[in-house]
Amino acid sequence: MESIMHHAWQRGFRCLPRTSALLSRSHSSCAEHATNPASASSRHVTPTLLVSRLYQPSNLRDVGQDSRLPGEMTCKSQRLMQQAGLIHPSSPGCYYYLPATVRSMEKLVRLIDQEMQGIGGQKLDMPSLCSAELWKSSERWDLMGKELFRLKDRHGADYCLGPTHEEAVTTLVAHQTTLSYRQLPLLLYQITRKFRDEPKPRFGLLRGREFYMKDMYSFDVNEEAAYQTYESVCQAYTRLFSRLGLRCVQVQADTGNIGGKLSHEFQLPADIGEDRLLVCGSCSFSANVETVSAGRTDCPQCKTGTLVESKGIEVGHTFYLGTKYSHIFNATFSNAQNKPTIAEMGCYGLGVTRILAAAIEVMSTEEGIRWPGLLAPYQVCVVPPKKGSKVDEAAGLAEELVHTFGETLPCLRGEVVLDDRTNMTIGKRLKDASRLGYPYVVVIGQAALEEIPRFEVICQQTGEMMFLSKDGLVDLLGRVETV
Amino acid sequence: MESIMHHAWQRGFRCLPRTSALLSRSHSSCAEHATNPASASSRHVTPTLLVSRLYQPSNLRDVGQDSRLPGEMTCKSQRLMQQAGLIHPSSPGCYYYLPATVRSMEKLVRLIDQEMQGIGGQKLDMPSLCSAELWKSSERWDLMGKELFRLKDRHGADYCLGPTHEEAVTTLVAHQTTLSYRQLPLLLYQITRKFRDEPKPRFGLLRGREFYMKDMYSFDVNEEAAYQTYESVCQAYTRLFSRLGLRCVQVQADTGNIGGKLSHEFQLPADIGEDRLLVCGSCSFSANVETVSAGRTDCPQCKTGTLVESKGIEVGHTFYLGTKYSHIFNATFSNAQNKPTIAEMGCYGLGVTRILAAAIEVMSTEEGIRWPGLLAPYQVCVVPPKKGSKVDEAAGLAEELVHTFGETLPCLRGEVVLDDRTNMTIGKRLKDASRLGYPYVVVIGQAALEEIPRFEVICQQTGEMMFLSKDGLVDLLGRVETV
Ligand SMILES: [Zn+2]
Ligand SMILES: [Zn+2]
Repeated sequence: MESIMHHAWQRGFRCLPRTSALLSRSHSSCAEHATNPASASSRHVTPTLLVSRLYQPSNLRDVGQDSRLPGEMTCKSQRLMQQAGLIHPSSPGCYYYLPATVRSMEKLVRLIDQEMQGIGGQKLDMPSLCSAELWKSSERWDLMGKELFRLKDRHGADYCLGPTHEEAVTTLVAHQTTLSYRQLPLLLYQITRKFRDEPKPRFGLLRGREFYMKDMYSFDVNEEAAYQTYESVCQAYTRLFSRLGLRCVQVQADTGNIGGKLSHEFQLPADIGEDRLLVCGSCSFSANVETVSAGRTDCPQCKTGTLVESKGIEVGHTFYLGTKYSHIFNATFSNAQNKPTIAEMGCYGLGVTRILAAAIEVMSTEEGIRWPGLLAPYQVCVVPPKKGSKVDEAAGLAEELVHTFGETLPCLRGEVVLDDRTNMTIGKRLKDASRLGYPYVVVIGQAALEEIPRFEVICQQTGEMMFLSKDGLVDLLGRVETV
Repeated sequence: MESIMHHAWQRGFRCLPRTSALLSRSHSSCAEHATNPASASSRHVTPTLLVSRLYQPSNLRDVGQDSRLPGEMTCKSQRLMQQAGLIHPSSPGCYYYLPATVRSMEKLVRLIDQEMQGIGGQKLDMPSLCSAELWKSSERWDLMGKELFRLKDRHGADYCLGPTHEEAVTTLVAHQTTLSYRQLPLLLYQITRKFRDEPKPRFGLLRGREFYMKDMYSFDVNEEAAYQTYESVCQAYTRLFSRLGLRCVQVQADTGNIGGKLSHEFQLPADIGEDRLLVCGSCSFSANVETVSAGRTDCPQCKTGTLVESKGIEVGHTFYLGTKYSHIFNATFSNAQNKPTIAEMGCYGLGVTRILAAAIEVMSTEEGIRWPGLLAPYQVCVVPPKKGSKVDEAAGLAEELVHTFGETLPCLRGEVVLDDRTNMTIGKRLKDASRLGYPYVVVIGQAALEEIPRFEVICQQTGEMMFLSKDGLVDLLGRVETV
């Protein structure tokens, strides 16, 4: 045995990969590399990311059924994301998430983790296969109708693919026989792929049949504590959208088939939005149309304002559930008197893939994607001159810049790409860069030939353009926020 | 509208969460905090992680069917993981991954990302729902039989839940009409939940029906290049297991129903292993029993050695596929002469949840979990004295230590927990700590009362114990590797 082990060890211990052009940002922290220079992970240096090698296929033949009725089925974000090689349809409402999208999603997941853990959330991961028994206990097996994907295993047992996990999480908590009031509030969440057999999947990632969702569930000692938890989750949601730079409205909502006593939606105002909101012109009142008596135009809160209709994309939803599920599954805790007591629950969803698409929907131009800064797949694109052009002699400055950023800006590690397609004109590459929406594009142009070379920087989010020296660039990019 | 937005903004902008005891490690890099002190994410300070608040329920009522036949169905890793509150069974072969497991899995995913991206791998994410058409094209719709979970959507269309994604990825690449030989090798991978309707799910996460897998697919210009890619993936696998400190054997394997020309398994030697290997005592030859003629005991490689049987847990599998799938789906690239040419493919799996369980299986004692250092959910547990004991006056040193680690060791951020259950004896808490397997346990005992306080450190992986001053501790823990 030992000889084989030895053999296997020797074979693999070289560190330089054959294809090293694509090492993306490692998630190990920068400071680890700084404080632990001899550690195993510091063996991984970041080679230059080359645009020519990135898998962002912009010209995929579209064979998905979503495009059958392009007029009805598409929207700006879907069109831009498909054109830029970010997504590709497979079956209706199901998409390949291509590498740039995965990078962006991973950033969004880190952000959500920060906010959820910031209010005490603990992350778990529940099975997608949910037994019919569980769903029959809550009566949702019948209530959900055709929206539920259902299947049988090889023994004929019935399952569904969970779109949310109230039953599963409540059962889990119910199985703990010694949960104490001292351990509450208990906030459990997951960020996983969910399934919903939408009657009309459309608008790309905005309404799919497979999607990523953050679902959190809270358990509290009493109604008052549950309301406090509810409020702290709403605050975390608001903080999240604020960090993304997205305008978001929190509106009163219907409790739908999840059930419960109180509910809010988090809506991004957008023309493409499928939700209709009523917003008061005079006070802070806002609600989903479904919750307001038909035809009502006066504000129920301030009594004086007029309700105006607006459209929104629902990106988050909160429910105060009370004891609906905890009662069914007997999820109890021991109170201060050591008596078993039914927990008060809440549940809180965020559409992860939907936030991504909605952000692109509301921020982009017709020609190019614009990202919330924190979510851009790559922060910087460096564009060297066309081969054979007058500026060609400054071409070396491009790699030098990328190298300098790598050395002095550890938090841009993996965030800087070099558009090495120097057979193309700068103009053509700038068009691509605009379509993909890198927040910062650095062009090696005429000014790079000056005695102290200057570089053109395009801040695509603001449209600003300026000329900066290398030091100026480092200064500017050092202030870029990443997650 | 503006008034509501304003309202929503104000409500959420406070930063101190009500429940702040549980903020886990943020994935933003340490250096970001260092260089960007005023950035939004640096608002997130790490409060002390308290054991009393961690959701690691160690006494769940076991109602899963996996435990019906405990003798046959359990193994060390399953038993230890359930006892320690790491996993909980839901339906056969399906588990809740509880928070400590999620932390460990996220570390393993980061490691795998580093190694895959180190050889040029690009991460995407493909749908779980795979259309029957696609699988009929490859004939796997029939070949896979009952192992495939199958379902119909609301329109009666047939789907399966993909256990692997050869069909899906090959179709994707085939849709790109302009793939050039210059872009090859193309290595695409995903780390997602997979489904397989195992006839006998058992051994906890070792053989489940839902599990996480890393599946990578390579596209090359010709056979020679494809073999090079194959070799570089094998090397990355070997490097991965080496970083985890796991003994791993690379053995010749059968190509099974995936098809292809060449295949290797990566096996962790273990008694519980379900694979039977033949290993030569004299040379490096090793193979799965299935690939060697029955009864053969002489080594086919060195001719002189004797083959000895051993058991292993398969944690990785590589296949050189040739053009099997690229031919079916017409996945072509333009060669140097601009002619469409069928790509040579390989596929490469790693069982993510299985690696986790297998590592616990081979490293743990009968009483407690031992982790590969990089994968431990938390690196350090600090145990203050029992309330009312003689050492109680040194209790404040515990929080002081945790604070010092937080200030001086940024890479242990989120990695240090304080066992605040001071109503329990130190002995009882050490037993818990041993069961959970924190690599480092720091005890505030008698020696903490000395003029220069010393602390007892237990290195649970080696069994070593020592007494160190605060500076000595910082020095020791500063060398801990994290991912
Ligand atoms: Zn009003
Ligand atoms: Zn031999």
